[in-house]
Amino acid sequence: MTFADRLAQLVAARESQIVLGLDPDPTRLWPEAIVEAPPDGPPARRAAAAVRAHCAALIDAAGPACVAVKPQLACFERLGAEGWAALAAVAEHARTAGLLVLADGKRGDVAVSSAAYADALAGSTQTPFGDVAGLGADAFTASPLLGGDALEPLIAGARAAQAGVFVLVRTSNPGAADVQDLALAQGGALWERLARLVAQLGDAGPASAAGLADVGAVVGATAPQHMARMRELMPRAVLLLPGIGAQGGRIEDLAPAFSSHRAGGLVSASRWIAGAHEAGGGSPATAARAQAERLREAAWALS
Amino acid sequence: MTFADRLAQLVAARESQIVLGLDPDPTRLWPEAIVEAPPDGPPARRAAAAVRAHCAALIDAAGPACVAVKPQLACFERLGAEGWAALAAVAEHARTAGLLVLADGKRGDVAVSSAAYADALAGSTQTPFGDVAGLGADAFTASPLLGGDALEPLIAGARAAQAGVFVLVRTSNPGAADVQDLALAQGGALWERLARLVAQLGDAGPASAAGLADVGAVVGATAPQHMARMRELMPRAVLLLPGIGAQGGRIEDLAPAFSSHRAGGLVSASRWIAGAHEAGGGSPATAARAQAERLREAAWALS
Repeated sequence: MTFADRLAQLVAARESQIVLGLDPDPTRLWPEAIVEAPPDGPPARRAAAAVRAHCAALIDAAGPACVAVKPQLACFERLGAEGWAALAAVAEHARTAGLLVLADGKRGDVAVSSAAYADALAGSTQTPFGDVAGLGADAFTASPLLGGDALEPLIAGARAAQAGVFVLVRTSNPGAADVQDLALAQGGALWERLARLVAQLGDAGPASAAGLADVGAVVGATAPQHMARMRELMPRAVLLLPGIGAQGGRIEDLAPAFSSHRAGGLVSASRWIAGAHEAGGGSPATAARAQAERLREAAWALS
Repeated sequence: MTFADRLAQLVAARESQIVLGLDPDPTRLWPEAIVEAPPDGPPARRAAAAVRAHCAALIDAAGPACVAVKPQLACFERLGAEGWAALAAVAEHARTAGLLVLADGKRGDVAVSSAAYADALAGSTQTPFGDVAGLGADAFTASPLLGGDALEPLIAGARAAQAGVFVLVRTSNPGAADVQDLALAQGGALWERLARLVAQLGDAGPASAAGLADVGAVVGATAPQHMARMRELMPRAVLLLPGIGAQGGRIEDLAPAFSSHRAGGLVSASRWIAGAHEAGGGSPATAARAQAERLREAAWALS
């Protein structure tokens, strides 16, 4: 089954469009995770074990209100090989909890390297010693800066594994304006051009029972004024919407994302869920579960 | 000493501006590397050992004609945690051979994640169990698609480690035209705007004895018609020039890159060196050494 159809089924079954962002910072882990690290060994191994325990606890707490997790690859890579092993374990934990895995690395490179990234995240790699499985992600984020011939191997690799790709169109950070909002001589902003590219690449993909494309878009929830135009330019794309909460985005502005399909928008939140106890008190797990459930209800009510 | 000054010294000492690209494909490793893999164990471990041996042999053969290695992170990530461990070992092997390490991952993300990437590649990560060192790269590649506030933490993290950053300005693939060549309403192409951003970010950096900035640019050798303009827009930037050979770029077109300083251009070649024996015969190591030496002479003669 294609990524889009697996997603649509899961959104309907869980009545949720929430994606649990996993951005573990080793200095801000839940206390219950730190004590699960081995008492000795190299710092990277102990920290990776704590990161893994933190993410597992977060998934156990908030996962039931979500459809997917979105591990931020940078947060694992900074712990080296131990971090990558923790990432694989966390992805497996999420799958066992019935969640999709969206690997967030914003990869993009010339064709041969893009193909390698697709193998790393969703596919597998042929070697003289047998195939090596990748991370097994259900979808991953990609950068369109290198153009169509760089995106195509990422998408082809994803498709071969029945996975999806979310292409950056208009990100949630203030600096997105520096490049993505530039006005083009041909008319429109760069992000509109990127949105058209996403629609095109998705239309070339497999049919989906839900009518959704397997190429989606990352669209920051911090620029709600563009949301209706995004939906117009990319009618079949699933929009991955980061930036709610800490970055200033408001869930009530996201309704246009859901106008085509209930699974047409995915609301991603990381620190807002994992750090809910810092603002509201209570145990980290209880606060995270309540926050995720509030988000789930608010998004579902919009769709 | 800043990255730019370390680079300038090494270029002068080795009379070389050649960067040895490390893009190991497990199905195309040198035969001498495959036999060094352990006779049993999981495919990922055996393949990672072979990749490590391949890169070490390549560095031993071609390294003396080069100033740096450029590992393509995708090629290691596709072997998971074992691949990441091989990457760290290969970087260490290159350093021992007196070469700089340019980590090629084209990273770029919102500020907090960009900071994590900088820690992963050039810095270190604070954890409750002690600091975890990153890859120790002397420089890394970065994507500017997310704008200034996403590049700044990458550059700040690099600077704190006396490392450099190479920002994508105009890549070597044909699809680069799809986005980077778009004409802007304000005049000029997107890549010219990116080039100005690179110059600005570099000017804010530390002084360098060589007069070179610690923010460089990735500029494909496949669009030589832009080379003089690149140098004009980024007078102090080191230009990392991939695309020679297999991708169609010709070394004799790169002279403008060296007009400001002999270390102002770095010519990167991967398959053209590692696969030299496929075209010209001989042992892989002998052919790679001869090819790298030919490239070194050709670039040095231009500068």
